[in-house]
Amino acid sequence: MKMLPQEIIACKRDGLALTRDQVEAFVAGVVSGEFKDYQSSALLMAIVLKGMTPDETSWLTEAMMRSGRIVDLPEISRPKVDKHSTGGVGDKVSLILSPLVAACGLCVPMMSGRGLGHTGGTLDKLEAIPGFSTELNDAAYRKQLQAIHQAMIGQSADMVPADRKLYALRDVTATVESIPLICGSILSKKLAEGIDALVLDVKFGHGAFMPTEARGRELAEALVAISGRMGKPTTALLTRMEQPLGRMIGNSLEVIEAIDCLRGEGPDDLMEVTYALCTEMLMLGGIHATVEDAKSALKAAIQSGAALQGFRELIQAQGGDPRVTDDYQLLPLCDFTCEFGLEHEKPMYVSALDARSFGEAACLLGAGRLSTDSVIDPAVGLELLKKVGDLVQPNEPIVRIHYRDTESLEAAQARLRKAVHLSLDAPAVLPLIVDRISREPKKMS
Amino acid sequence: MKMLPQEIIACKRDGLALTRDQVEAFVAGVVSGEFKDYQSSALLMAIVLKGMTPDETSWLTEAMMRSGRIVDLPEISRPKVDKHSTGGVGDKVSLILSPLVAACGLCVPMMSGRGLGHTGGTLDKLEAIPGFSTELNDAAYRKQLQAIHQAMIGQSADMVPADRKLYALRDVTATVESIPLICGSILSKKLAEGIDALVLDVKFGHGAFMPTEARGRELAEALVAISGRMGKPTTALLTRMEQPLGRMIGNSLEVIEAIDCLRGEGPDDLMEVTYALCTEMLMLGGIHATVEDAKSALKAAIQSGAALQGFRELIQAQGGDPRVTDDYQLLPLCDFTCEFGLEHEKPMYVSALDARSFGEAACLLGAGRLSTDSVIDPAVGLELLKKVGDLVQPNEPIVRIHYRDTESLEAAQARLRKAVHLSLDAPAVLPLIVDRISREPKKMS
Repeated sequence: MKMLPQEIIACKRDGLALTRDQVEAFVAGVVSGEFKDYQSSALLMAIVLKGMTPDETSWLTEAMMRSGRIVDLPEISRPKVDKHSTGGVGDKVSLILSPLVAACGLCVPMMSGRGLGHTGGTLDKLEAIPGFSTELNDAAYRKQLQAIHQAMIGQSADMVPADRKLYALRDVTATVESIPLICGSILSKKLAEGIDALVLDVKFGHGAFMPTEARGRELAEALVAISGRMGKPTTALLTRMEQPLGRMIGNSLEVIEAIDCLRGEGPDDLMEVTYALCTEMLMLGGIHATVEDAKSALKAAIQSGAALQGFRELIQAQGGDPRVTDDYQLLPLCDFTCEFGLEHEKPMYVSALDARSFGEAACLLGAGRLSTDSVIDPAVGLELLKKVGDLVQPNEPIVRIHYRDTESLEAAQARLRKAVHLSLDAPAVLPLIVDRISREPKKMS
Repeated sequence: MKMLPQEIIACKRDGLALTRDQVEAFVAGVVSGEFKDYQSSALLMAIVLKGMTPDETSWLTEAMMRSGRIVDLPEISRPKVDKHSTGGVGDKVSLILSPLVAACGLCVPMMSGRGLGHTGGTLDKLEAIPGFSTELNDAAYRKQLQAIHQAMIGQSADMVPADRKLYALRDVTATVESIPLICGSILSKKLAEGIDALVLDVKFGHGAFMPTEARGRELAEALVAISGRMGKPTTALLTRMEQPLGRMIGNSLEVIEAIDCLRGEGPDDLMEVTYALCTEMLMLGGIHATVEDAKSALKAAIQSGAALQGFRELIQAQGGDPRVTDDYQLLPLCDFTCEFGLEHEKPMYVSALDARSFGEAACLLGAGRLSTDSVIDPAVGLELLKKVGDLVQPNEPIVRIHYRDTESLEAAQARLRKAVHLSLDAPAVLPLIVDRISREPKKMS
């Protein structure tokens, strides 16, 4: 006998584990409309409060993944490995990582999202490059992956429709913060890409989606376990997101910083995370067997210029102007900049740069979206002249603000005043990469 | 700053008590549409799972009550007291109670609901009487209350719109079973009637909404506390609902049994509950100070025929044919009846008559609603020839089925086979009225 939506909801409300049939009926019902939005949101809240077992979570992930078109890339002979980050401020790692690991022998079929709220999105950053298109049809996408081993596009509307519907609903019903639901959303999208293996950057801290290390670890372990159950070798790095990653926040500015990195001139923290993620990708893809070999290959690809050349090819292939890699003035930039500091009489250390407030300040300047239909200004942003632990002399600036008008400048300045903290003593230096979570899946693909 | 719906939902999701402003914003948003259905259902599920404090529950009740028109009856000089039952099978108490307490000096401005699922509704029962209308406009309603001190109608669409919207949503999102939400729904409707005091029949058991005595007690205590906080003296009786109340189930059949009761020929269990509830009403209304005085007055009103005459007046006032009280053939009745029993070789006792299954069997015959748009057949129903504890001889019938066609008869028979249980030993007799829950409100109205 077929179950009514309210009967399925009642099971989860009462703390029962749903059966595979119930989970599949839910996902199918979301797509068909048989599960009304008000029924889905009631079930989502019950899932937030009562949880899901690993079985339920993998059934959910698989049903969501199968709710639309799944990409299969048999014509690609290279190992297909992707990376996903749970999102942070100043996180432009994808732009560096994709050409870098492609230069080292992987294929990176990356489908990304847009930014919302205080975190930026990879597609928005790429679109700062004049002409760059993040929409490719399936034939062009496959042709590009064969030719240059990388593509960075948005997921097409016929893929994972269940996630699109559920995500929109979760956003307005306070049901985002649930590890099974986050797992389902992230992995259904990534595993529909037709990849062989996956590396995850699970961020925690005040600037991240997961506020605490414990909660970040919980998510990382769940992601690795569920992805592994679904036959995809997966490694997660647990990384700290308290201050912005790197020095640039804003779309053009982050493209510039990514190019600097590919040129071998990137800031330490950003390169540390990028190298670590790339190393995991090369190892999961079977290109290198040891961390040392992988790291050497990555450094060589930067020093030889192969990685930067790969980024140029990516830009060219997707309709952008590859000369931006040599002339930053070809990117949309602001006419106005102004420097921001705090008043103090003695030299002081930067003790904290609150990533979330930096993200919000960039958003106020126009770099991000306050709602899904906001228009982004690629030129505006923030440039960190100091990072946590740096010494600041009296009257020395800490941030350079790239702004469009004084109204948004003042709003951003007000936010920055709450974001920047100084101390007389040097702050403790905490590790950026806190842990590596990995699990051998039962079956290698 | 105004809170977004998702921010209010997040507070309850995280187990916080909502503020009065938040509760009021929710109820206002439900009525205005600012709270979308999918947001309301997420909040409802969070309330089901995280609960509400007495403060929150009374704010919810009051905001719901104030969401539409509130009746005020200053022209009525008699004490205005109503009764509400949480619903059972065979529960036709309202039809007996209203004329009975009106004959003893109260005014009963009763607004009732329709049946859904295995329980019947007072309005459906009354509408079995040819011509009886449960829709009166405000002027006719007031005039009738002044003339005959009773009226039994459905609540008009301009009253308690928040409950109408929320109830429809709860029904399809598995968020019905929550004591604060049940409190809000029951009391917002009852207190919008302009009553001075309220008596509640909170039923528990397999045929009731609350499955266990503990859960029924919890609801009764909450209802009495919240109603008391809102300045209305309230008493609840906690009553068992394992077997059907009285002997009749079905709309015409229940009208007949109610008339039998008013004639002094009612079954013991039904009269026990009716007298007890009427006694509480007379005492809360200040008509009698002791249980003994109230009981004597009630018995006198039956013996004198005043109560039955009151029922005739009620029928007449609302357009029905009062001759039904003397000639049951004027009610819609079935041409076909058939008797139901179980096969056994020795005399056996009835050990259980599962009220829920009896309600479902009556529903299958056409007496109730499977969905809100079902049409009810007033003629069909079940007549219990035996009750729990009665001895049954071999081949002796236990139930008489009043049916319309063989298809529904067979479905009902199948359900009854699971509903009737016999034993060789006499079953333990459990009290019908388990407790009386009362609390002096801070302020008498």
